[in-house]
Amino acid sequence: MKLATLKHGGRDGTLVVVSRDLTRCQTVAGIARTLQAALDDWDTVAPELELVYDMLNAGHARHAIPFDPAHCHSPLPRAYQWADGSAYINHVELVRKARNAEVPASFYTDPLMYQGGSDSFIGPRDKIVADDSWGIDFEAEVAVVTGDVAMGATPAEAAASIRLLMLVNDVSLRNLIPKELEKGFGFFQSKPASAFSPVAVTPDELGVAWEGAKLHLPLRVELNGAAFGCPNAGQDMTFDFGQLVAHVAKTRELEAGSIIGSGTVSNKQGGLWGSTVANGGVGYCCLAELRMYETIEQGKPVTPFMKAGDRVRIEMLDEAGNNVFGTIDNTVVPLGG
Amino acid sequence: MKLATLKHGGRDGTLVVVSRDLTRCQTVAGIARTLQAALDDWDTVAPELELVYDMLNAGHARHAIPFDPAHCHSPLPRAYQWADGSAYINHVELVRKARNAEVPASFYTDPLMYQGGSDSFIGPRDKIVADDSWGIDFEAEVAVVTGDVAMGATPAEAAASIRLLMLVNDVSLRNLIPKELEKGFGFFQSKPASAFSPVAVTPDELGVAWEGAKLHLPLRVELNGAAFGCPNAGQDMTFDFGQLVAHVAKTRELEAGSIIGSGTVSNKQGGLWGSTVANGGVGYCCLAELRMYETIEQGKPVTPFMKAGDRVRIEMLDEAGNNVFGTIDNTVVPLGG
Repeated sequence: MKLATLKHGGRDGTLVVVSRDLTRCQTVAGIARTLQAALDDWDTVAPELELVYDMLNAGHARHAIPFDPAHCHSPLPRAYQWADGSAYINHVELVRKARNAEVPASFYTDPLMYQGGSDSFIGPRDKIVADDSWGIDFEAEVAVVTGDVAMGATPAEAAASIRLLMLVNDVSLRNLIPKELEKGFGFFQSKPASAFSPVAVTPDELGVAWEGAKLHLPLRVELNGAAFGCPNAGQDMTFDFGQLVAHVAKTRELEAGSIIGSGTVSNKQGGLWGSTVANGGVGYCCLAELRMYETIEQGKPVTPFMKAGDRVRIEMLDEAGNNVFGTIDNTVVPLGG
Repeated sequence: MKLATLKHGGRDGTLVVVSRDLTRCQTVAGIARTLQAALDDWDTVAPELELVYDMLNAGHARHAIPFDPAHCHSPLPRAYQWADGSAYINHVELVRKARNAEVPASFYTDPLMYQGGSDSFIGPRDKIVADDSWGIDFEAEVAVVTGDVAMGATPAEAAASIRLLMLVNDVSLRNLIPKELEKGFGFFQSKPASAFSPVAVTPDELGVAWEGAKLHLPLRVELNGAAFGCPNAGQDMTFDFGQLVAHVAKTRELEAGSIIGSGTVSNKQGGLWGSTVANGGVGYCCLAELRMYETIEQGKPVTPFMKAGDRVRIEMLDEAGNNVFGTIDNTVVPLGG
């Protein structure tokens, strides 16, 4: 099943069921007005939404309208929980290598996560409002939306709580990070509002691509119209989503609608630090990785961060070439611009 | 105006207006079913709630029922944003002094904040479910709930966005903190679900005690029936709530219902590191501070962290001795107990 949130209808928007091919959608106010409302009562609501989904796909939905991602907010325009992992250790290894630091051994057994802010996401086609001097970067990731998760849940229990998957652009302000991490309390101003894919999909929708609580499809990133990355999100993921969600739930219960991210998708590409798409590699899912690669190879970063007018697109195609989640498409605009 | 949330009525509970003396309350489903709904549309809703408040205080509310904090959830049982500052630098100075580290100069001009998780708070009278080995501690604080705040808001604009004040018990798991901070991404498992006071109050309710975006009243903490702390929340607060909220909004907008905490209230007590209530001082608002004081004075901490059965009470009285927010009253129970 595929679900999206149209922007009209208040702060939480309006829930729609979207056809598998992303061409049509239907509002379902009689079932659930918002995605959070559906998640709050998922066992009752999901079967009813599935019926609408089946009718949409069969072309029998009487009130279907064309689906336009330009009218979408993030599936959860605001959420009660957004925590993001660093499950692709290659990303961490690259950062450390660029400053000649070791990756602590514990990083391979204990997930590294940060607590994000979730009160106001931007939409999949919204502008990134930021000052060029902040070092604007994208991070292309996969994320899951959970149901209720008990404190102390096992990774298997946590994996079973996963209700939906989405893509994320975890916007990061690189030039604000060093000073912030120096303070010792983690990211804060350096992690502004993230954008999610127009569509959230249930795990069953992904077929064999959803295996072992990992999503085994390439994540495609395009920067200013040129291919920038296409690593496979199922490869080199040190911690699966069951492990990530269980990490969050170790000392607290998680409530329905919690979003847990994978961290920047990153493939090792045969033990190297990766290579660009232009050089025949799978490229990268953030500018920072390319800049670290450049630092390792050439002594300093060459590729600049994003500036006003720069545009990033993030999407995932299934094996038949169909767009699964719709496309995140964010352009930078200056603060006050 | 005083507002609370009764536990029945779903995940967000049921909003009630509470009389100034905390003896009676009234549901207001016809105005706003939940506190978040009221905050989402505050300018329209607040005047209607004020009318109910006036009637309650005058003894004219026809459907008033007795107010029982035991039936309360935290005013926002779940929220879209919970960020917590360290505005009382004495707390930070003590931590650093105990390990012979300097407080960086920037800490006096740039607020130290961490991003908390907000999907599932515990109620003011709920148990703290935790394992004794985690090093269970309380942190008594003041928090504000904001309306919408624009990105880049000034401290004055941010202060004007404050809709409500509450008390917080920011439960902290001290033995999980060192390893977590070592990882570099801040608190995560070490900050489980916080508890808020039964009642949230509007700033105008506080009269002259709300001045300069600080709350000038003693915060009373009692541990297992003995006075533990009573520092004044208006003293030694290096950053006021306007500055704290503006810090959060530097790179993102904040949506209505965002909760921003002060950090553990802590008074310098004449340049010393504070002293216990028993020794004639104003005491402390967390066990960690007392343990750091003991470390500085005696070479090692003496007071243990909380264990199963231990109970902490947090409240604030106005100058006439009336309980302003109701009392937070949390007892520790073991995981799986």
